[in-house]
Parts: sequence; C-alpha cells; structure tokens
Amino acid sequence: MANRNKDDNRPTIPLGRADPTMFPSYQTSPSFADAIADAVRSFKFNCYPPSFGVAQARRAVAEHLSKDLPYHLAPDDVYLTIGCTQAIEIVLSVLARPGANILLPRPGYPQYEARAGCSNLEARHFDLIPERGWEVDLDSVVALADENTVAMVIINPSNPCGNIFTYQHLKKIAETARKLGIFVISDEVYAHLAFGNNPFVPMGVFGSVVPVLTLGSLSKRWIVPGWRFGWIVTTDPGGIFQKQGLVHSIQSYLDITTDPPTFMQGALTQILEQTEEDFFSKILNLLREAADLLFDRVKEIPCLTCPHKPDGSMSVMVKLNLSVLEGIIDDVDFCMKLAKEESVVVLPGVAVGLKNWLRISTAVEFSSLDDGLRRIKTFYHRHAKKE
Amino acid sequence: MANRNKDDNRPTIPLGRADPTMFPSYQTSPSFADAIADAVRSFKFNCYPPSFGVAQARRAVAEHLSKDLPYHLAPDDVYLTIGCTQAIEIVLSVLARPGANILLPRPGYPQYEARAGCSNLEARHFDLIPERGWEVDLDSVVALADENTVAMVIINPSNPCGNIFTYQHLKKIAETARKLGIFVISDEVYAHLAFGNNPFVPMGVFGSVVPVLTLGSLSKRWIVPGWRFGWIVTTDPGGIFQKQGLVHSIQSYLDITTDPPTFMQGALTQILEQTEEDFFSKILNLLREAADLLFDRVKEIPCLTCPHKPDGSMSVMVKLNLSVLEGIIDDVDFCMKLAKEESVVVLPGVAVGLKNWLRISTAVEFSSLDDGLRRIKTFYHRHAKKE
Repeated sequence: MANRNKDDNRPTIPLGRADPTMFPSYQTSPSFADAIADAVRSFKFNCYPPSFGVAQARRAVAEHLSKDLPYHLAPDDVYLTIGCTQAIEIVLSVLARPGANILLPRPGYPQYEARAGCSNLEARHFDLIPERGWEVDLDSVVALADENTVAMVIINPSNPCGNIFTYQHLKKIAETARKLGIFVISDEVYAHLAFGNNPFVPMGVFGSVVPVLTLGSLSKRWIVPGWRFGWIVTTDPGGIFQKQGLVHSIQSYLDITTDPPTFMQGALTQILEQTEEDFFSKILNLLREAADLLFDRVKEIPCLTCPHKPDGSMSVMVKLNLSVLEGIIDDVDFCMKLAKEESVVVLPGVAVGLKNWLRISTAVEFSSLDDGLRRIKTFYHRHAKKE
Repeated sequence: MANRNKDDNRPTIPLGRADPTMFPSYQTSPSFADAIADAVRSFKFNCYPPSFGVAQARRAVAEHLSKDLPYHLAPDDVYLTIGCTQAIEIVLSVLARPGANILLPRPGYPQYEARAGCSNLEARHFDLIPERGWEVDLDSVVALADENTVAMVIINPSNPCGNIFTYQHLKKIAETARKLGIFVISDEVYAHLAFGNNPFVPMGVFGSVVPVLTLGSLSKRWIVPGWRFGWIVTTDPGGIFQKQGLVHSIQSYLDITTDPPTFMQGALTQILEQTEEDFFSKILNLLREAADLLFDRVKEIPCLTCPHKPDGSMSVMVKLNLSVLEGIIDDVDFCMKLAKEESVVVLPGVAVGLKNWLRISTAVEFSSLDDGLRRIKTFYHRHAKKE
C-alpha cells in the first residue's frame, strides 16, 4: 500500500477484510444502536457485571439459539464474551494441557493458530476440499487425531471459503468426532449469513452425537464488528462438558478475565428479540449479488479459479494459476503488485493457510467490488504470459 | 449470606465491594452516558478498532494525564484496554519469563496475584505499614528483589487501604526501584479520588527517575465500573520501555487480544474533555463524609482500629482485635457471623492479603454506612468478651 503508484488517484478498494461498515449499504440498523443508547442511559447497567454475564442477556442468547435446535438451551449454557476473539482465547486456554493438540481447518481463521501458540496447544491442520464445496477431509481428521487431541474446529458458514456445510456433512463430522472421542468447536460467527443453495444448520443440532462448543457474535449478521460482543455456548444436551469439568474450567477462567460492558449485556435482549427482517434480508441480498458478481467475473480472469460458488459468509477463496502469469512469484507477490498497480487490496491465501490462493471479501459496496474485479482483470492482462 | 437469619428483614448492607452504582447518590453524570449514546448512534464507530486503539481516544488519554505531569505524553504512549482487569492481564503476561518474579503490595488487589499465577510469574510481597499511613516498607522491597525481579506494583490511591502516597514517598519508591533496576507499575484506578490531607500525585511524575507503566480506568472516578474501560500508559520520558522491547511486547500481545468496543473509544474524547466539576466534587464530598463517619465510629467499636484516616479511594482497612471478642476465630469467622446476624457484608482482610483485618467499602449511601456501622457495634456488644 505504501508503494502504491503515486500517479494513481483512484480510491483504494479494500477486498482484504471482512469489515463492511465503511460502506453506506452496510450500516447496522438504527434500532440496534438505539438498544445500546437506551441501556446506557437507563443507569441500570453501570455496575460490574456478574462473572458469567447478566442473567437476562444469557437467557436472550439461549432463546435465540434454541430456535434452531431440537432441544432447549438454558441461560447457564451461555457465557458472554468480548467478541469471538475472547471466546477463542477462553476456549483454547481452558483446553490447553501439556502435550495436547487441536485440529484446525486449512484454510482457516489465523486467530486460532495465534491463540493455540500462546497456550502451548499444538495445532494440527486438516484440509478443506475445494472440489467438494470445501467440505472437511474427514480422512485427514482421522489420520491426525490421537489420544492427546482435545477438539476439532469448524467454521460454518466458512471464513474464508464462503461455503456452508450441509446437514449431512455436519452429521458426518459429528460422528467422526464422536468416534475419535474429541468434541467440536463450531465457530458460527457468520451464522444465518446464508444466501446460496445450502441453508445454515448449527452444529449444535448434533449436540447429542458429540458435545459442541458454539462460538458466536453480533459482529457479522448485525454488521457491528466494532461492538466486540460474542458468546460461548455449550450445545451439549448430554451434559458431558459439565461432567468432564470443562464448564468449571470456563467459569474459573471467566473469574479472572474481563467482561463485556454491562450496558451492552443489558441491551442484548432488545437486540436479539428485534426481528428486523427487512434489515437481514437486505444484507443477504447484497451479499448474494456480490457473490454472484464475483463468481461470474472470476470466470473472465484466466489466472483465477473459484471452485465453489459462495453460499454464505463474507469472503471467498479463489485459486491463483501462476502458470498463466509472467513475473509473479506467488500469492504475496500478486497481492503486493496488485495493490501497487491497481490500488486493490486482497488477502494472500498464505495468511489463511493456503499458499497461492487469494481471499476476496464480498462485503463491500457492489460498485466497489465491480470496479475492483475490473482492475484485477486489467492487472491480469498486464501480467499475462505471452503465448 | 445464605445463612442469614430468617427473621431479619432488614436490607443487607454491602460494605464489601467498591461498586457504588446501586446507590442513588452514586449515579454517573448523564453527560457521560450521552457521550456513549452519541457515539453509537453516529454510525462512525461500528468498524473494528485499530489494534492499539482509536487515535483520537489515545490522544484524549494522553492529554488528560499530561495535565499532571512535568512532560507531555504522546498518543503512542497509550494503549486502551477493557477495564484495568485487562490492563493487568496484558502487563503481567508480557513481563512473564521463566524464573521471573514481581513485587506486589500486601495488602493489595488480588487480581495481581491471580494473573501472576496464570502467567507463571512468581509473586513476592512487600508490606505496607499501617503505622506510617500505609507507606511501602522499602526495606522489604530491597530485601525481596533479585536479578529476576521485573517490576514492583503500587496502588495509589490505595485499594484497599484508602491512603494516598505523598510526593516524597513516591520519590523514594522511584529511587529505590531505580537502584534495584526494576520498573514501577502504578495502578491509578482511583486517580483523583483524593479527599483528605494528601493530594494525588501520579507516579509518572517520577518517570525520568524510573520508567512507569501507569494503569487507569473510567470505573471509579466516573462511577462506571461496568463500562470496562481502561488504559495502560508508558510514562517513560526516557523511552526505556521502547529500548528494552517492552513496547513491542505490549503491541504484539494487543495484536491477538480483544479490544474495547470502538464506539466507546469514540466517546472517550467527549468524556475526558467534559469538566463536570460539580459531579466530581459531589463524589469527593460523599466519599469524604463517609470516610469521616467511618473513622469516628470505629473509635466507638473496641474490636476495631483504623490506623489511618482515609485520604482517598473507596475503601479502608481496619484491624480486628480478636482478644476483646468471645467465640470469633478470625476475620473470616467475624465476617460470616456479621453477615448472618446483622446482614452486613464486609470483606475479610485475608482476601486482600492481611489476616484478621477487614476491608470496609466507604462508597455506599451515607445512611447505609451509618446503619451498617451501628449494626457492627451491636454485633461487637453481642460478642464482647465478658470482663
């Protein structure tokens, strides 16, 4: 970015991040902001919060998630966190013990690797298979797991791939995890951001097959990543986490860590109970249009392949075909030169574990995505290998 | 509390916590709540915050603290945290290395011990001397420190003691730390809550003698503990933290941890720039009246001694004289029986490191404190040793 061509006065197009809040189309609903403003002005929520969260807020999350489950969550199943970032921190910290390992998806979300590293938890990577709509390579899960494996992580809807796992595939994941004696951490930060063929099914549906820790957040569906509000939920009707002491470990960790502001917890019921169907369907339409545009346009750019049309979330992985390019070494080199020459920022795949791929965010203004894809095409033509 | 006498219908008087927000006199200023409401409704702060915090918020903290310092802080000296709890977590985590130890005050604030334990940082305790107005026993600091000591912690104004260190004593602390080659972590969460003889002087005043990490928060002075908003500030005009790599370590830690909500950062300038002198002086008057009442009343209760009239903060330590009581084993026993018989909750000193003392919070409604102290006197008479 610092090396950007000085004569290029075009605006930079940020296709590297999943934070659409700078774009006019992606403003959160005023009613969500009002809920926060009302709570802070009520003067009821200036006190320290209870360690595991304000009871009515925990109940609101339990009710919200129970709508999609075959059983009913209790408020005690819910722990409120400062975004999903803190949820990952808590879960990986309490799982860490000498010699333990955790199975992470490749490509994935680098916060898991960073936090595993901090906790001395060995990260082992299973593959997601692009040709099968980014499904989990369950054979590689089985091959990686051993007696020191504590859990496997899935991210559904997927960041960075943009796919959504089918009911059948989730069932297979649950059965595999059960057979291996490990549980599942299901990162559902993009829950309900489903606009394609596969509907979103929460992993907790299979909570009686295998205990699931579900991680969620307001960030994406409510378009408020900066609010830093998330949750950890034990979707575990058999009470296995309780018996194994994991619930106690989470509670002990929460006792000494920091909490989301009390007034935000106080606002949560109002936020989750508001239906705001217009708002949610508007966002889904924007994301669908963007995904369609991207999928079609990539076909016109010979150095890129999109193996799976996105079903959900806010990003997609496209494969880089270096053999049709001249003078581009790898994905990082591609991204650096693209930023410099065309003022378009995309994330090199290596940052999410997949070298010579690109992660492109679709959560941008339609016109910006359109412009960005045109510039990528121009970039391709400038660097195309001469026949 | 659960064992409370069933025939006792009096309200419980909570003198155990420093959270006065349940009392009508201790409501925060509506203008602070308005600043939050305005920020969240502006739609400018729904994005992810930058890792080290919103620039204008860091500048606001730097300006705010610089007023009391002989040099000027830069925005880059400030890191925004989720309350002082996260500030302690960050600082102790980045200081931890195999074999390292940290010097903590006794009595103190147990979060330091908890976090040191999590980070495998050995906690060594120096005494605060009640007969000298809870000054640091600098001889014990010198005796405890060795080549593996990384820092010493002071809490000023003091939680739990209620004293404020003089300029001269702070200077001696700085010189001692310099001689030992350790730096000072100054927990100033109660900054400016000074209503007695000693004015509040920030430790950063001696930043050129010894580098100081200052920890602060909105919680106490602004009466919003539930807002969970704090800061770490490098008050270090010589730039020693930068040279030693500590600044880099803090930044690396912040890269993978969670941040205060962006809209709260956005509101900070408005909160810190509002003078609200009436609000602040009202709170100081309340705390002064409460401290005066407590200090006078304790003289009438033979089993209690208050060695130092509080100058600041929201709590005070009183010594328990078990020899004048019958059938009370220790401070915990005293607190349990007091809660059961009189529905008054105070914190046993052992919870803050000083057995057979009590920590009494003064940040309660005046009438509640009055009532609570009367009940403690009644309790004493019921349990007084017969001559």
